[in-house]
Amino acid sequence: MKKLDYQKIIDDLHLKYKNVVNKGKIASYIPELKKIPTDKFGINLYSLNNHSFGSGDFQEKFSIQSISKVFALTLALKKVGEKIWKRVGVEPSGDPFNSLVQLEFEKGIPRNPFINAGALVVCDTLISTLKSPKSDFLHFVRKLSDSKDIYFNEKVVASEKKYGFINAAHVNLMKSFKNIKNDIEVVLDLYYHMCSIEMTCEELSKAFLIFANDGILPYNKERIISLSVSKRINATMQLCGLYDEAGQFAFKVGLPGKSGVGGGIVAINPDLYCLTIWSPKLNKKGNSYIGFKVLEEFTTITQSSIF
Amino acid sequence: MKKLDYQKIIDDLHLKYKNVVNKGKIASYIPELKKIPTDKFGINLYSLNNHSFGSGDFQEKFSIQSISKVFALTLALKKVGEKIWKRVGVEPSGDPFNSLVQLEFEKGIPRNPFINAGALVVCDTLISTLKSPKSDFLHFVRKLSDSKDIYFNEKVVASEKKYGFINAAHVNLMKSFKNIKNDIEVVLDLYYHMCSIEMTCEELSKAFLIFANDGILPYNKERIISLSVSKRINATMQLCGLYDEAGQFAFKVGLPGKSGVGGGIVAINPDLYCLTIWSPKLNKKGNSYIGFKVLEEFTTITQSSIF
Amino acid sequence: MKKLDYQKIIDDLHLKYKNVVNKGKIASYIPELKKIPTDKFGINLYSLNNHSFGSGDFQEKFSIQSISKVFALTLALKKVGEKIWKRVGVEPSGDPFNSLVQLEFEKGIPRNPFINAGALVVCDTLISTLKSPKSDFLHFVRKLSDSKDIYFNEKVVASEKKYGFINAAHVNLMKSFKNIKNDIEVVLDLYYHMCSIEMTCEELSKAFLIFANDGILPYNKERIISLSVSKRINATMQLCGLYDEAGQFAFKVGLPGKSGVGGGIVAINPDLYCLTIWSPKLNKKGNSYIGFKVLEEFTTITQSSIF
Amino acid sequence: MKKLDYQKIIDDLHLKYKNVVNKGKIASYIPELKKIPTDKFGINLYSLNNHSFGSGDFQEKFSIQSISKVFALTLALKKVGEKIWKRVGVEPSGDPFNSLVQLEFEKGIPRNPFINAGALVVCDTLISTLKSPKSDFLHFVRKLSDSKDIYFNEKVVASEKKYGFINAAHVNLMKSFKNIKNDIEVVLDLYYHMCSIEMTCEELSKAFLIFANDGILPYNKERIISLSVSKRINATMQLCGLYDEAGQFAFKVGLPGKSGVGGGIVAINPDLYCLTIWSPKLNKKGNSYIGFKVLEEFTTITQSSIF
Repeated sequence: MKKLDYQKIIDDLHLKYKNVVNKGKIASYIPELKKIPTDKFGINLYSLNNHSFGSGDFQEKFSIQSISKVFALTLALKKVGEKIWKRVGVEPSGDPFNSLVQLEFEKGIPRNPFINAGALVVCDTLISTLKSPKSDFLHFVRKLSDSKDIYFNEKVVASEKKYGFINAAHVNLMKSFKNIKNDIEVVLDLYYHMCSIEMTCEELSKAFLIFANDGILPYNKERIISLSVSKRINATMQLCGLYDEAGQFAFKVGLPGKSGVGGGIVAINPDLYCLTIWSPKLNKKGNSYIGFKVLEEFTTITQSSIF
Repeated sequence: MKKLDYQKIIDDLHLKYKNVVNKGKIASYIPELKKIPTDKFGINLYSLNNHSFGSGDFQEKFSIQSISKVFALTLALKKVGEKIWKRVGVEPSGDPFNSLVQLEFEKGIPRNPFINAGALVVCDTLISTLKSPKSDFLHFVRKLSDSKDIYFNEKVVASEKKYGFINAAHVNLMKSFKNIKNDIEVVLDLYYHMCSIEMTCEELSKAFLIFANDGILPYNKERIISLSVSKRINATMQLCGLYDEAGQFAFKVGLPGKSGVGGGIVAINPDLYCLTIWSPKLNKKGNSYIGFKVLEEFTTITQSSIF
Repeated sequence: MKKLDYQKIIDDLHLKYKNVVNKGKIASYIPELKKIPTDKFGINLYSLNNHSFGSGDFQEKFSIQSISKVFALTLALKKVGEKIWKRVGVEPSGDPFNSLVQLEFEKGIPRNPFINAGALVVCDTLISTLKSPKSDFLHFVRKLSDSKDIYFNEKVVASEKKYGFINAAHVNLMKSFKNIKNDIEVVLDLYYHMCSIEMTCEELSKAFLIFANDGILPYNKERIISLSVSKRINATMQLCGLYDEAGQFAFKVGLPGKSGVGGGIVAINPDLYCLTIWSPKLNKKGNSYIGFKVLEEFTTITQSSIF
Repeated sequence: MKKLDYQKIIDDLHLKYKNVVNKGKIASYIPELKKIPTDKFGINLYSLNNHSFGSGDFQEKFSIQSISKVFALTLALKKVGEKIWKRVGVEPSGDPFNSLVQLEFEKGIPRNPFINAGALVVCDTLISTLKSPKSDFLHFVRKLSDSKDIYFNEKVVASEKKYGFINAAHVNLMKSFKNIKNDIEVVLDLYYHMCSIEMTCEELSKAFLIFANDGILPYNKERIISLSVSKRINATMQLCGLYDEAGQFAFKVGLPGKSGVGGGIVAINPDLYCLTIWSPKLNKKGNSYIGFKVLEEFTTITQSSIF
């Protein structure tokens, strides 16, 4: 394969999609997120050999939301280990991300760690394990991204708590099935803090490099998770990372990835790079409208696919 | 029809069913209710012409639980009126009484006022309407049964609150659909107080006489609700009063009725009487195992049926 | 209660509702039924003391469709007996009348004999029992209505067979659960013939009088079914007779009844009369739009209700 | 990575798993398949550079069953093109492979081409497109595997037709939603013939090499499908190829694959090889019990994973 000029490809895509009609809609259920200018648009590719290629608002902070679920799962697998899989599955949900149906049918065991219910169980295990769950979690994310400048946004936390009735329904239902061990308020508090973390595209790309690098942090060669765990997290992202659009994402983009309602999507090309797009408006499935399209075109142009 | 000797029929049934093998099980999810001796067994028939026929523990208090939903609906229809039907349906649920599936599918509108979700909506309307919801409600029940000796059981309230995760899930889900107007904790507090009321078989029979008497209290001739509302509450009991065993109850007993997990069932024979059975062990559908059988045999012997 | 002038009430209702805007729609999935003029409108009340009160097109034949399910159940209970209840339930479906969901979830046991799947099981038992199922069935309906002039409509049969994919799905699913014993084509053939029967409002009212008369044919005093079976069929109609509008029907009309997509509804007032309305346009739940309204107003005016 | 001795690895795995307790069960719903000796066990790895490594019964024919769905999809994409995706999705089903629930909920559009309903739609498109669907299909499979010795098994076809009520339910339901264009019997006939094809592990590995080789047949360099289509079929296999165990397969095996109830599983390692296991007993999810375990251990030993 000839050497690709990532900077040019990214700049071209940024230019092209900046002017595309954006049919997406901003997530409405978190009032604090509605304040973000909808024309924000950043792209960053961070390669394993330590090159960063960015375009647009790629160094501006945004709310990572569900992307934090990958960090939570990684930390839980590191601290709690494989036994977490007794309390959460690895199968795609096949249903919208806030559905209670399957959770009830399957006796309080969430389908996978990337639906809200699954992430709530992961939070519950972290609370049972960590001394200071919130600060330990934040510390872990800072380490992965090699940046001290990463914080929770307490306004977003407050906003989500105020309207988070669906999550409260989920966690109560799981508590009734005894799959939540800690106090409901404590679990929701960690969950909303995790989701409220703000990072830039570049920080996210860098933090996800361990999944492209068999579990090893590139910048200091520290092993965070084993090769096997790293590949399994990628597999879980591939099958469950984009809610009920995971099939379309595998089909059209062909890389493992994770999205958030803040408009971010991170994709991993194993042994090569991570690529993060941020554009706040969402398609009908809750994934960044522009982000999905840019990733599809990027992998088509560069003929990138794990398949 | 020849004159029936209700006292003899009731005594015979009490004798017969006292010695029948009771295949039911005590409700396990409310720890406080598990303390009740499982061999308690009372029958009371209260006729419109003011005769009370009782056998066994018919003058002992027990937790009326879901039977209270009929009082709540009656008070709501009296105070709030027909507009309550915009927020709760009158169709049978066709599913177990704690299912979230239908509630989610139907956008937070509970199927009927006798499933938990429906009763929570009724509580919500009472809170929006009454000055002192809890004491007003208690006062209303005392008036219907012509007894001052009726109270909440705060231990049962505490016990239900502690393990009431499913109800919390329901009310949060409905709040997310904006079908709960008041604070979640306040709604649950009224709901659990209502359920915790303790009454005897005789008091329950007497309190339900308005539904056998076209809406008029027999003991003082006061009209509580209109003829039409009275008949509609009976219709709703017939279709939705015994969870997903309503069909069997209509089929085998043939009278409108309402059950509770405390082991009580009240049945109404319009223009004639109310009949209450209390036996704590429940069948698989959550209705009193013995209570259902006694009612079936009573209506067979007396050839009573509205159909 | 003062003596009611049924003829005047019916005439008044006919006059009033003839000119009401009919928001209903003709059933579109049976092409042959779309040919019926949508302004057809008949009312008939047939009393136990042998008076017939009719207005409009009450002596014109129409396709009885699902109303035939009551005849099928009655004949099956007469010939096969109570063991039929092992293969079909008596609970309301709580779902639209052509849903496969519940049938799959409940292992091929239909909720009740008045949803299509349940009627198909009833047909299956008739085929296993009767010598000449189709002609025996027709003979039975003729006997109940005391009329020889009742026939299948083979054009309607052909039309339903051609587009009956949902029923074929149901019967195949039940066959996979071994709840259909006979050949699928034979079962569907009897089912479609049953549905295609054409009767007048007057004939239907008369044929349903056994359910108002404790199981005895009024015109010749012959007992067709026991008192108990008669009351149980009424109970089943009350809970399951109007698809997922049964609750509204109990609530607003207050009598057991059965509807069909041909636009007919029959209601039973035990010990008094049967009342049949025919008006082809259907409401969103698949019941006659005008028929439901006329019945509601009739029972309000006459203060009729079993509750 | 050091050169792997595939023959030794495969022989070792065959030896080890030949003696493992097989907790699986033979598929019971196709009587003809129950005749297969349950201790059959073959492994074959066929590499892109034309080496075949086999152990055990790898050159014995078995019923490929659902593995044929990949051939059908490939032929349909070749002949019908992308417009097939309007009639079938690419999302995982999240439910058992014979569920009608989702199909009804989603208006007759099957979740993906590898559940039965989806494959039936694919068959329907082939019938609309091909001159001689059955022989054209067989010819296509023979070409992919470079073998003339491949046939339908008419006994298996007859056996499946006799008990295929669930498939008949599916196809009727889709016909009711107008997502089946051809005659139901013709669609089922092609479907059952496809499933009845018998091939060896070696033939299957060889036939799947196009998916490891970007759409090109290795043995004659003929392009069968485009690079993009090849990768998309792999993605679809990864997300939907093992019924509702796709997540576990991605997680533990880490390669795209497809299984069948005949006990075969094929896995694809892009740019390297295809690996087929055959062992008839199935785990609870309907996939070969031993096949899944061998694949998991093989990819662990060889550190193979696309992720």
